[in-house]
Amino acid sequence: MKFTAKQISELVNGLIEGDPDVTIHKVSKIEQGEPGSISFLSNPLYTQYIYKTEASIVIVNKSFVPEHPVKATLVRVNSAEVAFAKLLELYNQIKDNKKGISRQCFIAESAKLGENPYVGEFAYIGENTQIGNNVKIHPQVYIGDNTQIGDNTILYPGVKIYSDIVIGKNCIFHAGVVIGSDGFRFAPQNEGNKKIPQIGNVVIEDDVEMGANCAIDRATLGSTIIRKGVKFDNLVHIAHNCEIGENTYIAAATGIAGSTKLGKNCLISGHVSMAPHLTIADNTSMGGATGVSKSLTKPGLSYLGAPAMEVSKFRRSIVHFRNLPEIVERIEKLEKEHKQK
Amino acid sequence: MKFTAKQISELVNGLIEGDPDVTIHKVSKIEQGEPGSISFLSNPLYTQYIYKTEASIVIVNKSFVPEHPVKATLVRVNSAEVAFAKLLELYNQIKDNKKGISRQCFIAESAKLGENPYVGEFAYIGENTQIGNNVKIHPQVYIGDNTQIGDNTILYPGVKIYSDIVIGKNCIFHAGVVIGSDGFRFAPQNEGNKKIPQIGNVVIEDDVEMGANCAIDRATLGSTIIRKGVKFDNLVHIAHNCEIGENTYIAAATGIAGSTKLGKNCLISGHVSMAPHLTIADNTSMGGATGVSKSLTKPGLSYLGAPAMEVSKFRRSIVHFRNLPEIVERIEKLEKEHKQK
Amino acid sequence: MKFTAKQISELVNGLIEGDPDVTIHKVSKIEQGEPGSISFLSNPLYTQYIYKTEASIVIVNKSFVPEHPVKATLVRVNSAEVAFAKLLELYNQIKDNKKGISRQCFIAESAKLGENPYVGEFAYIGENTQIGNNVKIHPQVYIGDNTQIGDNTILYPGVKIYSDIVIGKNCIFHAGVVIGSDGFRFAPQNEGNKKIPQIGNVVIEDDVEMGANCAIDRATLGSTIIRKGVKFDNLVHIAHNCEIGENTYIAAATGIAGSTKLGKNCLISGHVSMAPHLTIADNTSMGGATGVSKSLTKPGLSYLGAPAMEVSKFRRSIVHFRNLPEIVERIEKLEKEHKQK
Repeated sequence: MKFTAKQISELVNGLIEGDPDVTIHKVSKIEQGEPGSISFLSNPLYTQYIYKTEASIVIVNKSFVPEHPVKATLVRVNSAEVAFAKLLELYNQIKDNKKGISRQCFIAESAKLGENPYVGEFAYIGENTQIGNNVKIHPQVYIGDNTQIGDNTILYPGVKIYSDIVIGKNCIFHAGVVIGSDGFRFAPQNEGNKKIPQIGNVVIEDDVEMGANCAIDRATLGSTIIRKGVKFDNLVHIAHNCEIGENTYIAAATGIAGSTKLGKNCLISGHVSMAPHLTIADNTSMGGATGVSKSLTKPGLSYLGAPAMEVSKFRRSIVHFRNLPEIVERIEKLEKEHKQK
Repeated sequence: MKFTAKQISELVNGLIEGDPDVTIHKVSKIEQGEPGSISFLSNPLYTQYIYKTEASIVIVNKSFVPEHPVKATLVRVNSAEVAFAKLLELYNQIKDNKKGISRQCFIAESAKLGENPYVGEFAYIGENTQIGNNVKIHPQVYIGDNTQIGDNTILYPGVKIYSDIVIGKNCIFHAGVVIGSDGFRFAPQNEGNKKIPQIGNVVIEDDVEMGANCAIDRATLGSTIIRKGVKFDNLVHIAHNCEIGENTYIAAATGIAGSTKLGKNCLISGHVSMAPHLTIADNTSMGGATGVSKSLTKPGLSYLGAPAMEVSKFRRSIVHFRNLPEIVERIEKLEKEHKQK
Repeated sequence: MKFTAKQISELVNGLIEGDPDVTIHKVSKIEQGEPGSISFLSNPLYTQYIYKTEASIVIVNKSFVPEHPVKATLVRVNSAEVAFAKLLELYNQIKDNKKGISRQCFIAESAKLGENPYVGEFAYIGENTQIGNNVKIHPQVYIGDNTQIGDNTILYPGVKIYSDIVIGKNCIFHAGVVIGSDGFRFAPQNEGNKKIPQIGNVVIEDDVEMGANCAIDRATLGSTIIRKGVKFDNLVHIAHNCEIGENTYIAAATGIAGSTKLGKNCLISGHVSMAPHLTIADNTSMGGATGVSKSLTKPGLSYLGAPAMEVSKFRRSIVHFRNLPEIVERIEKLEKEHKQK
């Protein structure tokens, strides 16, 4: 898609300075601007770049006074930052504008689609499944039987949703996400490692986003629950019967073992591992690769290390860990001095 | 699917107490019972909930004597726990009852299917591939050329099995599992990072289960081997030429580097990492995020930490690690006292 | 596929000793040779196995003089190792010889395919996407709109490439790889956790290989960049706006947070985690499960531990960590002795 400076200026209610017919087809940072791209200038530290940028259009504040000649066409607005954010959102809406039902997908007769659907090529929708309005089901997505998907939710290519899952509104699932695989529960090895049936489901509330290749297991009985506003990065693992509290964010490659409950507004970094059957308080933060083996029930604290310690304590201990050779030398010196006496 | 109390009582050989025509369509915990669900009461600690539960049917022991009125229809059996487990298994069998061959899949002419197959929409089965009896190949599964899949094995949606792989009977692979990708072997960077051809395969024996998005590489030469009864959680990585011993369980996000051999009946927690070319003895246990850089050849031991230590030793060291600031203060005190003499 | 000893000898320019009509259909190690397989003998340590091997054909150096009878047909060449490597490469080319465009795939009218394409069943190619010559797009691959794929690149089954991505020549992406999912960027939780639009892309240069189920996020603005010759193992996570330098190798389950830049020729082991906004120098090595929270700007060093320390320092500290109980006993002894005085 191409846009002229004139079209851009109308979208953001701005004034053109330069060629109104110049076209752009992509977005760039001002310091990396290429011909055919649009950029913006808001932070004064970046003003230097506007004189060199190859971007075809730059959105600037009305107050901007150039000190050298500017090659790009300028669009002057009240707030360059706000105008640019608005443009990005419009751009995203236009970009992900797929509509209609492919002739090469499979929709069970008993499934129900909402208004304004997109069902891409080679997608599969199972028996009795109910899809809300404006849902985007990209190519090669699988949705099992008896599953519900709320309005405006986006399933990117190759997402797999098992049967009996409940998903809220305005959710986004990136490619390769799996929702509803069996929990990892078996009888002990010496008892013939028999599989324990996993007949619960997964309930995902509104406004949840999950990155690529996340894996969320169904509950053994009852539900694995992901509360409103939760965000996962890529490759996150959530085991059977976990509950992740409202607005908690979890970074990439973190895994949470069975039946552990996280509170609200937690900030969990990448590569964190949590043992099963723990309770983690609201507003807990964890640094990268924290290993949690016990419940953390006091809200608002930050942790680091494996096993997890409060960050300030971990930092004090780790300084001494790095100095252990010197510490041992000091002990040896004391021992020698003692002997000499 | 709906079942009446009468049907349930016949399945578990029980006696109805209450409305024989009440129907259920799902399973719940007794303390979370909702109308339309079936639950069970076995543990006396949960007896309190039977008087409040909204479950429509509760399976109880014959010996159960209510002390208050019970709203649910009861089904009395010799052992509520055994009867409920039996019901769950029947339910699972009914739930995963897909059959037949979709008209929207691809099966190479030279491929051979066993009896009673399920091949879902957009599944692909390559040349000379042999599929056993009662195998369930869900939608969007890929099976390459010259691959063998044993009887009763289930491939959930989107599983990818490369060419020349051998898979046993009664295996379960969850969505997103990849079997047979190339091993990570390249000539050193200063020698032009040429790829080393990976022409071995993967052999998976009977009764193996793998969670969502696991990745199992083929051998460089010979076979990557997963023995009978092995169970993997989600997002497990197994490199080229590894061998995982019989009945070993591996939890989520664990990764094992090339040519490492694990013994039988090991219990490996999540986020464990193992270096290449190691040997791990039978019955070894590892706690979460253990990092193994050397072979562990004495069977039956438990490890923790990175690098791995025996659990009891690691625990003793970590207590002192947490106290390092205090330990250093004690040394400082000794040093001062020494000087004063 | 089957080959006779005569065909093999012609391929590697060798002399047959034994039955020229014996056939092989697979490759084996000499110590594990089975009938119907071909093997080679180069390392003298393995000479013992040639007298027992069940392999039907063994490639040997011209200089090889048997001391006992050999059952296998021999093919004598100048260098058995070189000849065998050549055979493996030919075998790989023959094995992955899929061609043509399936009638069950979807290719947008505005997409452009190069010469000699393979587009497998249920693959999807979006609007304005350009595919180079000899590209292999296996079944169930997804390629979004406006994406470019260079010559000779292989996309294994189920790979998902989002829109606006640029991929070079001679790349290999294993099953389940996702390229171009949104970066993990949201407004803080107390500001309504609004999604920050992710409108950048991913640029992957020539000769890059990625293992199964890797996840590479698009940039917020600009590009996430993977330079020429980079190799990833399975389940690697690369966040938005990262840059991975030329010929850097990254092992399985490693994750790199947003905007971090790695230099050239780095060797990163498995389960490594890196914080956002770091700079890592050229030729840096990291051991398994290293946790990097600060930039490492001196080239050519090796690191281990979390937080990362230079390997030699980490090893010295960890020895003392293991001895902490004994170290504390020594302090206690000093304290007691001090009191007695």
